[in-house]
Amino acid sequence: MTADAAYLELLHRAREHTLLGSCATLLEWDEDVCMPEGGGEHRAEQQALLARLLHVQATDPRLGDLLAEAETKLGPGLAPGDPASVNLRELREEYEKARLVPASLVEDLARVTTLSYEAWRSARDERDARTFLPWLDRVVRLKRAEADCLARGRDRYDVLLDEWEPGLTWAVLEPMLIRLRADVSPLLDRAIERSGPMTELLRHPVDVGLQVKVARELAEWLGFDFASGRLDQAVHPSTIRVGPGDVRLTTRFRADAFTVGLFTTHHEVGHGLYEQYLPGEHFGAPVGEAPSLGIHEAQGRLLENHLGRSRSFWRHLWPRLSPRFGGPLAAARADDVWRAVNHPRRGTDRVTADELSYDLHINVRVHLERALVRGDLAAVELPLAWTEAYRRLLGVTPPDDRAGCLQDSHWAEGMLGFFPTYTVGNAIAAQLMRRLREETPALDDALAAGDPQPLVAFLRDRVHRLGSLFSTGELVARATGAPLSIEPLVAHLRDKAELWG
Amino acid sequence: MTADAAYLELLHRAREHTLLGSCATLLEWDEDVCMPEGGGEHRAEQQALLARLLHVQATDPRLGDLLAEAETKLGPGLAPGDPASVNLRELREEYEKARLVPASLVEDLARVTTLSYEAWRSARDERDARTFLPWLDRVVRLKRAEADCLARGRDRYDVLLDEWEPGLTWAVLEPMLIRLRADVSPLLDRAIERSGPMTELLRHPVDVGLQVKVARELAEWLGFDFASGRLDQAVHPSTIRVGPGDVRLTTRFRADAFTVGLFTTHHEVGHGLYEQYLPGEHFGAPVGEAPSLGIHEAQGRLLENHLGRSRSFWRHLWPRLSPRFGGPLAAARADDVWRAVNHPRRGTDRVTADELSYDLHINVRVHLERALVRGDLAAVELPLAWTEAYRRLLGVTPPDDRAGCLQDSHWAEGMLGFFPTYTVGNAIAAQLMRRLREETPALDDALAAGDPQPLVAFLRDRVHRLGSLFSTGELVARATGAPLSIEPLVAHLRDKAELWG
Repeated sequence: MTADAAYLELLHRAREHTLLGSCATLLEWDEDVCMPEGGGEHRAEQQALLARLLHVQATDPRLGDLLAEAETKLGPGLAPGDPASVNLRELREEYEKARLVPASLVEDLARVTTLSYEAWRSARDERDARTFLPWLDRVVRLKRAEADCLARGRDRYDVLLDEWEPGLTWAVLEPMLIRLRADVSPLLDRAIERSGPMTELLRHPVDVGLQVKVARELAEWLGFDFASGRLDQAVHPSTIRVGPGDVRLTTRFRADAFTVGLFTTHHEVGHGLYEQYLPGEHFGAPVGEAPSLGIHEAQGRLLENHLGRSRSFWRHLWPRLSPRFGGPLAAARADDVWRAVNHPRRGTDRVTADELSYDLHINVRVHLERALVRGDLAAVELPLAWTEAYRRLLGVTPPDDRAGCLQDSHWAEGMLGFFPTYTVGNAIAAQLMRRLREETPALDDALAAGDPQPLVAFLRDRVHRLGSLFSTGELVARATGAPLSIEPLVAHLRDKAELWG
Repeated sequence: MTADAAYLELLHRAREHTLLGSCATLLEWDEDVCMPEGGGEHRAEQQALLARLLHVQATDPRLGDLLAEAETKLGPGLAPGDPASVNLRELREEYEKARLVPASLVEDLARVTTLSYEAWRSARDERDARTFLPWLDRVVRLKRAEADCLARGRDRYDVLLDEWEPGLTWAVLEPMLIRLRADVSPLLDRAIERSGPMTELLRHPVDVGLQVKVARELAEWLGFDFASGRLDQAVHPSTIRVGPGDVRLTTRFRADAFTVGLFTTHHEVGHGLYEQYLPGEHFGAPVGEAPSLGIHEAQGRLLENHLGRSRSFWRHLWPRLSPRFGGPLAAARADDVWRAVNHPRRGTDRVTADELSYDLHINVRVHLERALVRGDLAAVELPLAWTEAYRRLLGVTPPDDRAGCLQDSHWAEGMLGFFPTYTVGNAIAAQLMRRLREETPALDDALAAGDPQPLVAFLRDRVHRLGSLFSTGELVARATGAPLSIEPLVAHLRDKAELWG
């Protein structure tokens, strides 16, 4: 067998693996959007079976032979930026990791996270975490076991961080969180003091049917292709790519807070454009995917905040939207709405938090999930620990578990170590925007004129279409001309705070 | 290994096979109801992969060993009606059949039928079969190849018949079709002559949103459990069971023909109740499934016609429905609507056909699909052959391909040999109803009083909950005290014809 033949068979197997994985992805989406409640147990069995079949594929010793063959004969001749070089490196890593985790654990994780997600949904409906906590306990134990398998000498939480954001460790993350807390907390306090009480304007009811219509229009305006995608409602917003030509966003709407649906849509469209613009010719190979979740979150946070909370965006949107919303909203001025959507506050809710407080919400979650993973906190203690952390970091007390530890689905789904990617995403988004503004001084004029193309094209060319050709750090450095840093985010938040004088 | 252990492992493997198959089923439902058009090619690849994995499971030589072990040691001690006896017989048959078909053919069939279904949908939108016919040609060729693999000395079309209706052959089917044509055609002519022109009443527009609401109410009234199921709209109505607790119906509505949605819903609820009442403890084993498609169709045809076109049903429903429909419908009398929904006609459409003409529509399809399978008709000749057959058998000419050879999705989905199960289903439904009426003289009083329980309970106890414990013939004989016959159907159609004097 030639080295090329070995590599081609590796790629073929990677595509089959992605294909089978995409069946599991669709089943997840269906669970979220379509499945009747009675279908939960069968769904868990389906997911357990698919997880086991995926694990059999991923650990096939034939992969080891093919990798060795391709690495020896093809590897030395490859330039670092060659797609084959990325694929070989990542496929090797995936193979080694898959072999470290036993099939039974993989199967249990799939089954338990499916059932715990259902348990989370009903506990959330009841606004009471008690029925969910035993499930969380099972999830945490399984994730710990998984981390132990993958550890290779590392700390458990570092192992989980690395799954979502390759290379991220607690040693890198902690100073970021400290810096944000130290620098941004005083800014938030000052902004709250100067901004005065929140207007009731944004609470004016807007028909959900109309909101859904507006969400679709915004998604289309941003370039989301509905011939190759969908937008649905779900309890927890998300974006998935079933495959090329099939990218699905879910979002949520509140009649008494139309900005929730609007910002959630912007966020998910940010993810959705990434998935739609990823290089289709590499679908199924590692180089065809995003290099990390942080760079993915950056797309969502960028559209949500740097576009969605910008003055120029509201100057374009509001005159078109307000007559359709009617009531007192029809009479409101664009600049007032823009100020209202940036109003700083110490609240209990992450998704609707303003930018100044957002990373404090992440801070709470990161410390709690690290404590869960390290065994410093038991699942049963979570509701109390959550309340205490919110009192300490944000100065507020959630009225119930739905507004407290049940507000996010991540842990129920086994996504421990995921939350830091939001802060990483915020940092990347700020750095990308700084560069875009330097290169495109007329950006705000374009946005105010209703043209998002300079922004969307920048993201497509510098990020989306490159897949995993570069690591997240390299990608950001190439896109912005500077190494990834938290400084642009801190500077951006300082600007936000100054909005209030 | 003990015989019990071999049998238990067989059952375990059968359940895993069903579980994996249920992933493919969900993907099919999603293609129909949710998938964006851009997702078709990826979906075809997903289905091809699942089909290959299913085939690997189904042909695992270990199954052969386990079957031999269980047959030798367990088989002799089993009574004929023992679930284990049914399972062993059916698993043996499935194993032998699976080994006759090469994996590549199985994979091609899954891929091509997914794509051809998409092609059928767009051709249908265009009302022009030309873009679909090359796909039909590919499907027919693959189905021929499959039939040749499975033939074991039989005729190709008999092989395909047997896939849907075990034991059915052309030798059995042809006399049924001839009998129906000979006996019912004159009845239809006389009924058309005596019934006079069709009232325009049923064409009065009814808001589709309201129709959907009514459809859900009817499904609930008939006992369909929405906590374990769904009802959606799709181009072609169908019923699938993803698994226990997850049964999904699709139906379709026309603003200018509210009876289409109503009868389609009844039909699919008939299938849906069967799927919801099948013995859950046997899920995944052959004995937990329906023994044939004919007995399944009987459930749909029975609720659609014997309930949905009965005078007592309309006497209950119409006074409740008509005020909500409003307009001239509010003033119409129940008996007039009942007569209108039974109005005999020679039309071009199968799904909306009255009972007297229905089997003539089947007759057209059966002869055409048999000719396709036997190679007597090329796919490209279908539109013309369809038109000629309709002119000959029904005396009408479809205005375009959508009203002609594109009206059904079956062939696009690879379901060649399926259509006869509608006529078998009609026969079984009539025989079941004759028995139910004998046993329950007050049936019409109950229905007129809005109580479908005597009917639903009869079906549940005599058919649904028995799974495949008996063959279709045995099941019908046990349920009705007489061997399966076409006479009750002919007698029922004679009664229908006499409605017009």
